[in-house]
Amino acid sequence: MTASPRRATLATVAASAGVSVATVSKVLNGRSDVAPATRSLVQSLLLEHDYVAPAPRRAEAVGLDTVEVQFDTDLNGYSSEIIQGAVEAGAEADVGVVVSIRAAADRTGSWARDLVAAGRRALIAVTSELSGAQLGALAKARLPLVVIDPLNLPRALVTSVGSTNFAGGLAATQHLLALGHRRIAYIGGPATAACNQARLHGYRAAMEAEGVPVPPEYVRTGHFRYADGVESGAALLDLPDAPTAIFAGSDETALGVIEAARARGLRIPEDLSLAGFDDTQIARMASPPLTTVRQPLREMGGVALRTALRLAAGEKIDSHHVELATELVVRGSTAAAAAPPA
Amino acid sequence: MTASPRRATLATVAASAGVSVATVSKVLNGRSDVAPATRSLVQSLLLEHDYVAPAPRRAEAVGLDTVEVQFDTDLNGYSSEIIQGAVEAGAEADVGVVVSIRAAADRTGSWARDLVAAGRRALIAVTSELSGAQLGALAKARLPLVVIDPLNLPRALVTSVGSTNFAGGLAATQHLLALGHRRIAYIGGPATAACNQARLHGYRAAMEAEGVPVPPEYVRTGHFRYADGVESGAALLDLPDAPTAIFAGSDETALGVIEAARARGLRIPEDLSLAGFDDTQIARMASPPLTTVRQPLREMGGVALRTALRLAAGEKIDSHHVELATELVVRGSTAAAAAPPA
Repeated sequence: MTASPRRATLATVAASAGVSVATVSKVLNGRSDVAPATRSLVQSLLLEHDYVAPAPRRAEAVGLDTVEVQFDTDLNGYSSEIIQGAVEAGAEADVGVVVSIRAAADRTGSWARDLVAAGRRALIAVTSELSGAQLGALAKARLPLVVIDPLNLPRALVTSVGSTNFAGGLAATQHLLALGHRRIAYIGGPATAACNQARLHGYRAAMEAEGVPVPPEYVRTGHFRYADGVESGAALLDLPDAPTAIFAGSDETALGVIEAARARGLRIPEDLSLAGFDDTQIARMASPPLTTVRQPLREMGGVALRTALRLAAGEKIDSHHVELATELVVRGSTAAAAAPPA
Repeated sequence: MTASPRRATLATVAASAGVSVATVSKVLNGRSDVAPATRSLVQSLLLEHDYVAPAPRRAEAVGLDTVEVQFDTDLNGYSSEIIQGAVEAGAEADVGVVVSIRAAADRTGSWARDLVAAGRRALIAVTSELSGAQLGALAKARLPLVVIDPLNLPRALVTSVGSTNFAGGLAATQHLLALGHRRIAYIGGPATAACNQARLHGYRAAMEAEGVPVPPEYVRTGHFRYADGVESGAALLDLPDAPTAIFAGSDETALGVIEAARARGLRIPEDLSLAGFDDTQIARMASPPLTTVRQPLREMGGVALRTALRLAAGEKIDSHHVELATELVVRGSTAAAAAPPA
C-alpha cells in the first residue's frame, strides 16, 4: 500500500489554477459567472487533483436516507454477502440500502446527478473500475464514493475497501506446499485486476520462498468465473506435467476445476488438491467442501457503508484504502501430495 | 388456486360492525372520537375481513420512490436472483429497490409505520409467513404488500407471486421415472410450507400415476438447506432398500445429497440420479451440473415489483396470487437406472 497523500482542497485547486477559492466554488456549483476558459481550466484541475467535495448538508429526514450499492454485473453469491453486510450496517444507522446493477459503460450522462436527485447520500461501487470522467461526475455531483474490492489499483483519493489479497494468496499456496505439493498451478482473474495481481504475487512469493519454480503454463488468467475453472482446469490437467494442486482465484473458479477433474475421473483431494478464494456459500456446499481463503465480504460491505456515511457527514476518514484480513479455511478439498517431493 | 373473493371495502366492514363508513374511516385513521368498544369491534372486523386500504396518494417526487424487498433470513443465491429481478424492474420504473433483512419475530411495533415514514411505496416480503397482526399493521399503515413464494397457503387478499410448484414436482419425478427409476425419494422443506406441499404432491402424483409405491421413509422434510441434503441424503442412502434416485426440494439440498453420496463412494449419476429445485447459480456449478426444476426467480422478483407499484398506485390487479411457470432443466446429474424396473 502506498501512503495516503492529503486530499485536495478547494484551496489546492485554486492555487494550481491561479484563481480564487470562490471561483473554484462557482465552477463546482455550475454557476454561469465564470469565464469559459477559466471554467475549463478549473474543471481539468479538479479532475487532475482527484478533488472530492465534502458532502453537502442535507435535511435530516430520519429514515429517508438511502445509500446505493451498485454492481456492474449479475448478482451472485459474492454479491449477496456484500449486500448483507451493507444492509446490516445500514439498519444500525437507520439508512436504507438501495441495490442497483449498472454496467460501467452506462455510468454516463446524468448518472451521478440522478443518484443525488433520488436522495442517495453516497454510492458504493462493487468491483468496479471507474473512469476519470465517472469520478469527475461524482465529484461534481458531490456524491461520496466508496469502492469495494477495486479492480484498478487503489488510487489515492478514491476511498476503497478490500481484503489482504496478497496475504491470502500466500497462505493458500503455503498450505499446499506444506502438504508436500510442488506442482502447484494458479487460475486467476483479469491480468490487470489489482486483486488478481495481489493473489498471484502471494502465490509467486510462497513458491519462490520454497525454491519451487513456476512454469509459465501454470499461471492462467480468467474472469473469476465457473467457466474459467472448467476451461483452465481442463488445460492444466491435460498437461504432460499436470499439477497435483491448483489454487483458484475464486470459489466459482474452483468449482469449475472440480467439474474438470470429475470429467477426467480424478478425485479431489486424492488425485488433486484444490484451494479457492472468497469463502462464499458455494465453498461450503462444494463436494468436497472447499478449502478456501475467506474474504470477510459481509464485513467489507459493512465497513464500506459506514465509511460512506462518514464521508457523507463530512467527517475525516483515516485512510483512503482499508484492507480487511483474509483467513485460510481448511476443508476437504486439500490433502497431502501422493508422492513426496523429489 | 382458490377463486379470489372480492376485496373487503370500508362499506363491507361498516355493515358487519353495524356502524357508518365514516366511523370505520375514523378508526383506520386513528382518530380519537370513536368509543373504545366500537373501535375494538371495528379493528377486529378489519382484520377478519383482511381489509387492505388503497394506497394513499403521495407526492410524486421522481426518483425518491423506493420499494423495500424484505427477507427474513441470510441472503443466498436464491435471494440474489429475486433481488436482481426486482432491481431490473425497478430501474425500468425509476424506483429504487431497498433490500432489508428482518426476522419475522422482529416485524412488530412501529415496523410498518417506519417503512412508510422511510418513504417506501410498498413492501415485498420474500418466503415469509406473515401473522394476522403483521398484516393488520401493514393495512393500518396503508402500505401495499406483495409476498414472493409464500410459506403459508396463499390467503385471499394477500397478494402473492409464486411458481408452479406442483407442476415442477411432477415434471422432476416424471423425468426420473422415465429414466427407469422406481425407488425415488423426496427431500423437502418444512412440512407446513405451501411450496413444499405442492412439490411433494407433484412427486406423489407422478409416482401414483405410474403405480409406484412411496415407502414412508422415502419422504423427508427439512428447511431446503444444504445440511438437510447431507443428513437426509445419508439416511436415505444407508437404507437397506436405498433409493436409486432422489428429488431434492431445493438446489442447496441437492448439493448436500451430492456430498452425502461422495462420502459413501457413490457416483452421480452412475450410482444415484439426483434432481433439484430452483435453478440458482449453484445448480450450474455443481459437479456434476444439476438437473433441476427452474423457478423463474428473476421474473418473480420483477412481477412482484410491478404488482407492488400497481397496488401503490391504487390500480386493480387481476388476481391476488400469480404462479409463474417452472421448467425442467436436464443436466448431468440424472441418468438411466442401472437395472431395468421389475
